[in-house]
Amino acid sequence: MTDREKTTRNPEALTAHLAVANALADAARVATLAWFRRPSLSADSKEADRFDPVTEGDRAAEDAMRAILADLRPNDGILGEERGRAEGSSGLTWILDPIDGTRGFLSGTPTWGVLIALADAEGPFVGIIDQPYIGERFTGGPGLAEVTGPLGTAALATRAPRPLSEAIIFTTFPEVGTPAEGEAFHRLATQCRLLRYGMDCYAYALLAAGQIDLVVEAGLQTYDIAAPIAVIEAAGGIVTDWTGGPAHQGGRVIAAANAEIHAQALKVLSLTPRA
Amino acid sequence: MTDREKTTRNPEALTAHLAVANALADAARVATLAWFRRPSLSADSKEADRFDPVTEGDRAAEDAMRAILADLRPNDGILGEERGRAEGSSGLTWILDPIDGTRGFLSGTPTWGVLIALADAEGPFVGIIDQPYIGERFTGGPGLAEVTGPLGTAALATRAPRPLSEAIIFTTFPEVGTPAEGEAFHRLATQCRLLRYGMDCYAYALLAAGQIDLVVEAGLQTYDIAAPIAVIEAAGGIVTDWTGGPAHQGGRVIAAANAEIHAQALKVLSLTPRA
Repeated sequence: MTDREKTTRNPEALTAHLAVANALADAARVATLAWFRRPSLSADSKEADRFDPVTEGDRAAEDAMRAILADLRPNDGILGEERGRAEGSSGLTWILDPIDGTRGFLSGTPTWGVLIALADAEGPFVGIIDQPYIGERFTGGPGLAEVTGPLGTAALATRAPRPLSEAIIFTTFPEVGTPAEGEAFHRLATQCRLLRYGMDCYAYALLAAGQIDLVVEAGLQTYDIAAPIAVIEAAGGIVTDWTGGPAHQGGRVIAAANAEIHAQALKVLSLTPRA
Repeated sequence: MTDREKTTRNPEALTAHLAVANALADAARVATLAWFRRPSLSADSKEADRFDPVTEGDRAAEDAMRAILADLRPNDGILGEERGRAEGSSGLTWILDPIDGTRGFLSGTPTWGVLIALADAEGPFVGIIDQPYIGERFTGGPGLAEVTGPLGTAALATRAPRPLSEAIIFTTFPEVGTPAEGEAFHRLATQCRLLRYGMDCYAYALLAAGQIDLVVEAGLQTYDIAAPIAVIEAAGGIVTDWTGGPAHQGGRVIAAANAEIHAQALKVLSLTPRA
């Protein structure tokens, strides 16, 4: 068995991983909803020259998840957006983004999410995208791809192939990274049927749920994309960088519903010059 | 009493209006959710030269609402996005947008909405913005401004004044109408702290709920803005066109949390040349 097979083919270990992941998501729901749409919520900017907000909700949710991991998984590593990296000895790392889409959280939208992934040396293999306000959880792992929400529980499966001219594409900001990256993105988007903005991690959940065909972003961090990779791959989709290589360290990311549309989109994106 | 006072100051009439409005919203929830995220959902384009989608969900929801009005309010007029205008004899008109944000509906996002307004000769005075998937209803009318949703029921109240440099502004498409309209919008948006896209009618609900400061759009129809006007005005906000005049016939619209930020934003927008 390879290391990856050891972590994914053991049903008991997988059940235990999912129980921990759900406990983290449950705790983050409570912590984020304690601040969501509350008049007392305020934001600090993490950077002086632009508005990169972090809120009490981000910090409270990450701290709640770290407390659970300290208890249940003291030997696993942690990489969290707000509190950084803690090395482990198990070969497994929990990758946490307590609020992906803090700008949306600050604005009251229901499209931010809590991102939780478990990774081994080869990358993330269990992931949760949770939307606490809607009460909706998208979960992916070996042999498991499902959403639980207002309409009950359903399997996640990405869309069948269709031409770019019938595709729905999402990204969060119209600028999409650097000018060169933005130019490449819009060259692709103009070939699609429908382009939408502003959904943060919720766009990846929609791709896993078979609602849309492509999500393309740039300038991502590991914690932005680890959970989406696990959920989308479990649902039958593909997530790579803009040259078709691994995406789990962030940067330029394309998530596609199937190999056919992934190949079509890569043809447009792969020539993008490095900044 | 003026005509407006007759329709708004009679508590029994108002209670009856709200009961009808809620019955319409309940029926539209069922009709839209029967199609939302279903594999069988498809879209036709209402225009040949661009993708202006309408779905079975749009038509089913408007038909369900019209059937209720035929039963409960045969003498009221109806203006609906999909089935047009039906004249009435009561002086009251129900203005219906069965799915505002059909592009979002087609993409599976939770930010489209059912818009229901009741108008007299002076404009809309009762409004509902309903998000069926979340199970969230924003209601406004004389003496009533509340949201019912996942966290229970809460009063709606728009934000207190703050400088443009601390404001959150929303619009649906980055282009915002004509090139001149888009240029004016972005001149305003660059003075704000945070700009977000893609929420359709949900942005107006967030403004009524005190989460954001400004929503600015162009090229709207009466049925896009009638319900938001009633909800936002009940919550303490202001909705006008870009010169400060009435907005209930659509076109260029600005919704503002308070008179101060409305005045600041109008200074930027009001010089926009007519196309």
